[in-house]
Amino acid sequence: MLEALKEKVLKANLELPKHHLVEFTWGNASAFDKETGYFVIKPSGVSYDQLKASDMVVVDLEGKVIEGSLNPSSDTPTHAVLYKNYPELGGIVHTHSNWATAWAQSGVDVSAMGTTHADTFYGPVPCTRYLSQKEIDQGYEYETGNVIIETFKERGLGILDVPAVLLHGHGPFTWGKDVEAAVYNAVVLENVCKMNIFARQINSYAPDLPQRILDKHYSRKHGKDAYYGQKMK
Amino acid sequence: MLEALKEKVLKANLELPKHHLVEFTWGNASAFDKETGYFVIKPSGVSYDQLKASDMVVVDLEGKVIEGSLNPSSDTPTHAVLYKNYPELGGIVHTHSNWATAWAQSGVDVSAMGTTHADTFYGPVPCTRYLSQKEIDQGYEYETGNVIIETFKERGLGILDVPAVLLHGHGPFTWGKDVEAAVYNAVVLENVCKMNIFARQINSYAPDLPQRILDKHYSRKHGKDAYYGQKMK
Amino acid sequence: MLEALKEKVLKANLELPKHHLVEFTWGNASAFDKETGYFVIKPSGVSYDQLKASDMVVVDLEGKVIEGSLNPSSDTPTHAVLYKNYPELGGIVHTHSNWATAWAQSGVDVSAMGTTHADTFYGPVPCTRYLSQKEIDQGYEYETGNVIIETFKERGLGILDVPAVLLHGHGPFTWGKDVEAAVYNAVVLENVCKMNIFARQINSYAPDLPQRILDKHYSRKHGKDAYYGQKMK
Amino acid sequence: MLEALKEKVLKANLELPKHHLVEFTWGNASAFDKETGYFVIKPSGVSYDQLKASDMVVVDLEGKVIEGSLNPSSDTPTHAVLYKNYPELGGIVHTHSNWATAWAQSGVDVSAMGTTHADTFYGPVPCTRYLSQKEIDQGYEYETGNVIIETFKERGLGILDVPAVLLHGHGPFTWGKDVEAAVYNAVVLENVCKMNIFARQINSYAPDLPQRILDKHYSRKHGKDAYYGQKMK
Repeated sequence: MLEALKEKVLKANLELPKHHLVEFTWGNASAFDKETGYFVIKPSGVSYDQLKASDMVVVDLEGKVIEGSLNPSSDTPTHAVLYKNYPELGGIVHTHSNWATAWAQSGVDVSAMGTTHADTFYGPVPCTRYLSQKEIDQGYEYETGNVIIETFKERGLGILDVPAVLLHGHGPFTWGKDVEAAVYNAVVLENVCKMNIFARQINSYAPDLPQRILDKHYSRKHGKDAYYGQKMK
Repeated sequence: MLEALKEKVLKANLELPKHHLVEFTWGNASAFDKETGYFVIKPSGVSYDQLKASDMVVVDLEGKVIEGSLNPSSDTPTHAVLYKNYPELGGIVHTHSNWATAWAQSGVDVSAMGTTHADTFYGPVPCTRYLSQKEIDQGYEYETGNVIIETFKERGLGILDVPAVLLHGHGPFTWGKDVEAAVYNAVVLENVCKMNIFARQINSYAPDLPQRILDKHYSRKHGKDAYYGQKMK
Repeated sequence: MLEALKEKVLKANLELPKHHLVEFTWGNASAFDKETGYFVIKPSGVSYDQLKASDMVVVDLEGKVIEGSLNPSSDTPTHAVLYKNYPELGGIVHTHSNWATAWAQSGVDVSAMGTTHADTFYGPVPCTRYLSQKEIDQGYEYETGNVIIETFKERGLGILDVPAVLLHGHGPFTWGKDVEAAVYNAVVLENVCKMNIFARQINSYAPDLPQRILDKHYSRKHGKDAYYGQKMK
Repeated sequence: MLEALKEKVLKANLELPKHHLVEFTWGNASAFDKETGYFVIKPSGVSYDQLKASDMVVVDLEGKVIEGSLNPSSDTPTHAVLYKNYPELGGIVHTHSNWATAWAQSGVDVSAMGTTHADTFYGPVPCTRYLSQKEIDQGYEYETGNVIIETFKERGLGILDVPAVLLHGHGPFTWGKDVEAAVYNAVVLENVCKMNIFARQINSYAPDLPQRILDKHYSRKHGKDAYYGQKMK
């Protein structure tokens, strides 16, 4: 079942340690299949060097396991609620990558200071609030997804315009139209988080990127007038 | 004697440079054997790329060599006093890993700022006091173990609830129910130490993790209600 | 056409990830051919591990593709305007390398604090202004080249005396008499940017290098009295 | 001539990029032969991946080439003056390693904040003054050696008690009883420099290591009462 997608999800998970975004099992990647309405996700706590495509778990949008002999990632309900709420998502990645997690621990949004950011994120990457005791009791991972949705609603952000979030005190989630894009966005976020720390240490008055350059760079790579890469030829 | 455990201890020692926790010979891992009451430890000052399982030294709880032709790690008495005092320990690791050692040099506890910390350490990782002249004269490595014990007693910490300590001006010791856990905890500590530095540089008012989230994450991975990984299936 | 130069440009591009200066496709290297007046540049958005010499695109000084089936780098007009204005340039490199990009985001020049800098850059590496809305509308990548030229003119800098620039909010461009030198200068700049941040964090009053030592080190490696390396023998 | 020593010097030079202490050709290692009174040093500006033992240059204590078809390192006179003044030196290493060079650019001594430092350096690693115009004119590399000697004399330091120095605005030199020790000390210095920066960022009041612990750790590895490693068995 969904064998090709399992291969993609395996590959995406293996990209995470390769890009130095995860240690041990501290991350997970999933991909959504529009036809069945199921998604494929990494099993919980299985070491990356032992991971096989057949270990991937198929889950429905309520977080129920449809196929697979292993427990899915403990973060599965967060993935489920995001896929359910945002049908445009094709892949989701969660890591504890060092620089993005430092920002998540700081509780501060990552503003757009450069074009590396603007090429991928159309504006600041938001940091959520902490979950309440009630939310933890009701279902921590499920409510984590709801807090992400709340954050994007309150700020009026398009989910694919800013394909990343920081969970306060936890770490980053990124996503995209497919799981490859979600991995890519996780790498962008990690680099941007590192560079912004030091940009403001060099010059604490360093400005955010002017809106006109944010607009220009985002539109070079996204939307109908995009001209980066080989697609337009 | 204890050949299987020697293999495990060798492997654990080799994990340390692989995870960028040690340069040269600046680290050691040991494992305790409950049946014999002996522990197996790396020899002193032997380069990691020459290390063989048969080089590992078997030592009793007084620090006396039981088997082995090489000198055991100079930190052997610290391991011995910890194993003797805490029968629940199955493995101990000592490194001079950069970020944890920077914290050890700062003399400051590592507070729980994120879930990476809370998944492994139930509260702040304590930093000890310096040893006194008297303690140095009486037996530096032995008294190092006693200072760790004193620190955990004074703070009322369970040794497996917070399986790590920073020795002021020296570096980290970590431990666990086995030597693999001790290595794992050394990696967690190194990551947490790095991330906390920059979290407070981004936002000097960044709060510690709320107790409710610390409780939640620690209990996801530890205790009777744990549901992370594959064990419960 | 220009097959030998294509091989050189391919090799130069592959040096960029090897020196940890680029992630994914975030960089480009080009080389100028004096005989034809054309330059060879990396195609846009093609992954480094798939890049072949035959993928390289031949472009004229107006930025028009002369040969090649792929789109050239989206930064091609910047390369073109620099080659057109400075006939002494044989190669150009653009990256989003972390430390240089952090400086570019800070908007601050990189002053000469050490001999690593002085061996390659004869004085501070300048940071440009942001482009205006009008410049973005007229042709963003072309005007990026013009802003670099303006910066060097206003400061009276020789283009090969300081073979690097930071684009405010974007990242570094480096160049040289050939593309190998441009890559080399990109590595120097990245190292210098990292070291200067921490030098001033250790001592916020740390001085720039005295002029006499800047002169001495630059002249050890450049000009008629150079005596570094094997060339003079 | 001195073929075995050339092999050692080659190997020592190759250790430098392996330990991430040098980029390109920015470093050099040499070893002294007590019998002939000559030393063997890396040629100038030759890439590490092309370096062969037969490329090593034999030089006398006046810096005159005795054997070898390549130019010796441009820093050869610094090595010569140090070997001439300190007959106890068997090897010298110079690098532009990032963290030590940041300290050299800051102009600040590296104080002993931890046992990683105390295991190797008996007290602070000094930073020299800048060279004067007169010294530059008289012979920059030769006078660099003299400034190192002046620094150790003024502070009353034993050359093997603190086997490292920072040249203000330049970078580190380390040395030892042989070239392997000089490489080892370069790695220690790089680690210590990194850790001290962040220790004082975590806690700007973090104290230096108490003298009693500096004494204890240094004597564990040096002098007649040393008990670290396998030598004493």
